[in-house]
Amino acid sequence: MTDPLNVCLEKKAGFDLPDSPSSVGWTKPQKIILATSDNPLPLDCGASFAPITVEFETYGQLSPAKDNAIFILHALSGDAHAAGWDADWQKDKRPWRKNKPGWWDEAIGPGKAFDTNRYFVICANLLGSCYGTTGPWETDPLTGKPYALNFPVVTVDDWVRLHLRLQDYFEIEKLLAVVGGSLGGQQALAWSINYPERIKSAIIFSASARLGAQGLAFNAVGRQAIFNDPSFNNGNYYGLTPPWGGLELARMLGHITYLSYESMEGKFGRRFQNGTQPCYRLNSEFSVESYLEHQGRSFVQRFDANSYLYLTRAMDYYDASSHGGGNLAETCSSIDAQLLLIAYTSDWLYPPASTRALAEAIIANHKPVSYIEIPSAYGHDAFLLEVTRTAPLVASFLENALEKGDQ
Amino acid sequence: MTDPLNVCLEKKAGFDLPDSPSSVGWTKPQKIILATSDNPLPLDCGASFAPITVEFETYGQLSPAKDNAIFILHALSGDAHAAGWDADWQKDKRPWRKNKPGWWDEAIGPGKAFDTNRYFVICANLLGSCYGTTGPWETDPLTGKPYALNFPVVTVDDWVRLHLRLQDYFEIEKLLAVVGGSLGGQQALAWSINYPERIKSAIIFSASARLGAQGLAFNAVGRQAIFNDPSFNNGNYYGLTPPWGGLELARMLGHITYLSYESMEGKFGRRFQNGTQPCYRLNSEFSVESYLEHQGRSFVQRFDANSYLYLTRAMDYYDASSHGGGNLAETCSSIDAQLLLIAYTSDWLYPPASTRALAEAIIANHKPVSYIEIPSAYGHDAFLLEVTRTAPLVASFLENALEKGDQ
Repeated sequence: MTDPLNVCLEKKAGFDLPDSPSSVGWTKPQKIILATSDNPLPLDCGASFAPITVEFETYGQLSPAKDNAIFILHALSGDAHAAGWDADWQKDKRPWRKNKPGWWDEAIGPGKAFDTNRYFVICANLLGSCYGTTGPWETDPLTGKPYALNFPVVTVDDWVRLHLRLQDYFEIEKLLAVVGGSLGGQQALAWSINYPERIKSAIIFSASARLGAQGLAFNAVGRQAIFNDPSFNNGNYYGLTPPWGGLELARMLGHITYLSYESMEGKFGRRFQNGTQPCYRLNSEFSVESYLEHQGRSFVQRFDANSYLYLTRAMDYYDASSHGGGNLAETCSSIDAQLLLIAYTSDWLYPPASTRALAEAIIANHKPVSYIEIPSAYGHDAFLLEVTRTAPLVASFLENALEKGDQ
Repeated sequence: MTDPLNVCLEKKAGFDLPDSPSSVGWTKPQKIILATSDNPLPLDCGASFAPITVEFETYGQLSPAKDNAIFILHALSGDAHAAGWDADWQKDKRPWRKNKPGWWDEAIGPGKAFDTNRYFVICANLLGSCYGTTGPWETDPLTGKPYALNFPVVTVDDWVRLHLRLQDYFEIEKLLAVVGGSLGGQQALAWSINYPERIKSAIIFSASARLGAQGLAFNAVGRQAIFNDPSFNNGNYYGLTPPWGGLELARMLGHITYLSYESMEGKFGRRFQNGTQPCYRLNSEFSVESYLEHQGRSFVQRFDANSYLYLTRAMDYYDASSHGGGNLAETCSSIDAQLLLIAYTSDWLYPPASTRALAEAIIANHKPVSYIEIPSAYGHDAFLLEVTRTAPLVASFLENALEKGDQ
């Protein structure tokens, strides 16, 4: 888990690199302005938005032919720090990262699925998130106050449109792969549909063409918990007490949907928190309760409630079929990349059947797609937890994509 | 749905019947004191509790041999009003009931599954609920204030212990059947295990020996939503603004668990509330969102937040296997009744596998049990919605139980 990468981003003219690469080998988080008032980002909601600063990290080295770049796309609570340890960096501002590896460290590094000895990996924080890229927490230059709910509603397609500018910045004609799980998988799909000429392949974990009604419902309840919190104050809580109670509830609920019936039975069952007999009280009796409370409390230390609102909403809105007037097969006709879709049997947020439906829509267009359904009890979170299981699949798929690029 | 029953409870000495049966044919809700300081109810938590008033209703006529009585056991949000229209009764105090049938009206009435031309049906509101039976809303005679959170934590076994006193009151040696769905099914199971000599049969819908970790987790989040509401005030909100926001959230969440992935897809899918295009806003965009908000808002008009805390906790605590030291088969060795267990394929709160495990534990004791798994998309709520489907099964099972009793 502590592999030093021993490589750093090539210095490029006009690119504001940090003074030195971090001591553990990957590039420090970098910030780049990707939209200005002269070149704002057009959004699906109709607005054109600027300025936008994007925080990103890279791992490995971009080849001279620029044919080995993989864009890793993070999910709801992720950030640009996908791999490597972070013992030193910004410990005052982001103390929760101390001594924790990046969110997909098991998958990214020398000899791992996304082998940084071979590939150049980019990961960027999402617009609207709270980890360095412009979001509701940032000061609106027009008002001098945080955007809060004046931040525009952003979508998965908006994110891909923005990240394409990062691809352009690196002067990468075609990404070897775009890769993500959950909300990240939706981005990988959007990239495949919207910019087929800019990628060679895509790997989509634990995601499908759209979230189902049940998923929409859970997200709605989570947001309502934040709205209900008296500290929410219509999003204007910066510098005051944030709506921690509401965000904690939203996270507790979300967490249930990331696990599975089986994994919760296995991990907690009906075990009491203390002893073997009930204490006959209304809260904190069962282990599963205290676990969720802990998850909720940890989350509010590191995430912004407004970002939670915007990112879950983007997840809600994404519906690939809307590009085909509601016909998913028609949408998929634009796809040119090789696709690898990986679903997990116990994922009930994006059930395998929904991923399979996406595969069938691609097949209907005689496009290359591999669909793999992996038996797992880990539910939706399996893409983060079953890395060892999928590493050979991913490595082989990328090898193949790279070879095809060489032909 | 409007069948007048045209029968009323036989007047009995010492039984405080209301002045007249209701105009639509069943007995008006009745109240009876079932625990006094001289004869308090022993509770699982160790306390002895009194006074307890129980509100109940009856339908049909008790036979001279008292061998045709069926005790219907309600679930989380139910009450004693299981059948019949309620256009007149207590319209000021419970306006939401106006022009609404009882919660299982489709199943109870002349010629229905629980045929009131043949059977005498009793339904009583649960201890801790808010529909007439003693609960947290009631004045504690010791303090002159509502119990609020000084109300004792009650359990499914406590409820059955209390309702047995109602059976005694009617001088019914053996109930023909105890019947319930969900939390009501847990009561029916508890009755079968704890008082085998007092029943001939039990019908258990959408329930099993215990709630799984995922169900515990959802209940915990619902309660946390209530605790978080600033109006909750540690349960002391009577006469003030109740914690409506928290209770609304809890109900929205609960409602998702009562439906199924399939039924939500079928009923709402990703339909927008207004029009066919997104409005790009953070709330009330999808039909499923406004539906849940409506469900939540309706619920807070008719339910007490403290009761929600106590009843979900009872649901959490019930674990039949605790009577057998953790061994469900050992627990089931006391069962003497004929059992009918009905599970629905899409129920994910009490999944069919958990009901089947209960059936197997009964079979392991060479006891008679019928387990039926009914294909349904209605999820946990199917016991309320698939009544036509189960009516012949129920009628036949009761017929058989009655005949065996005659032998």
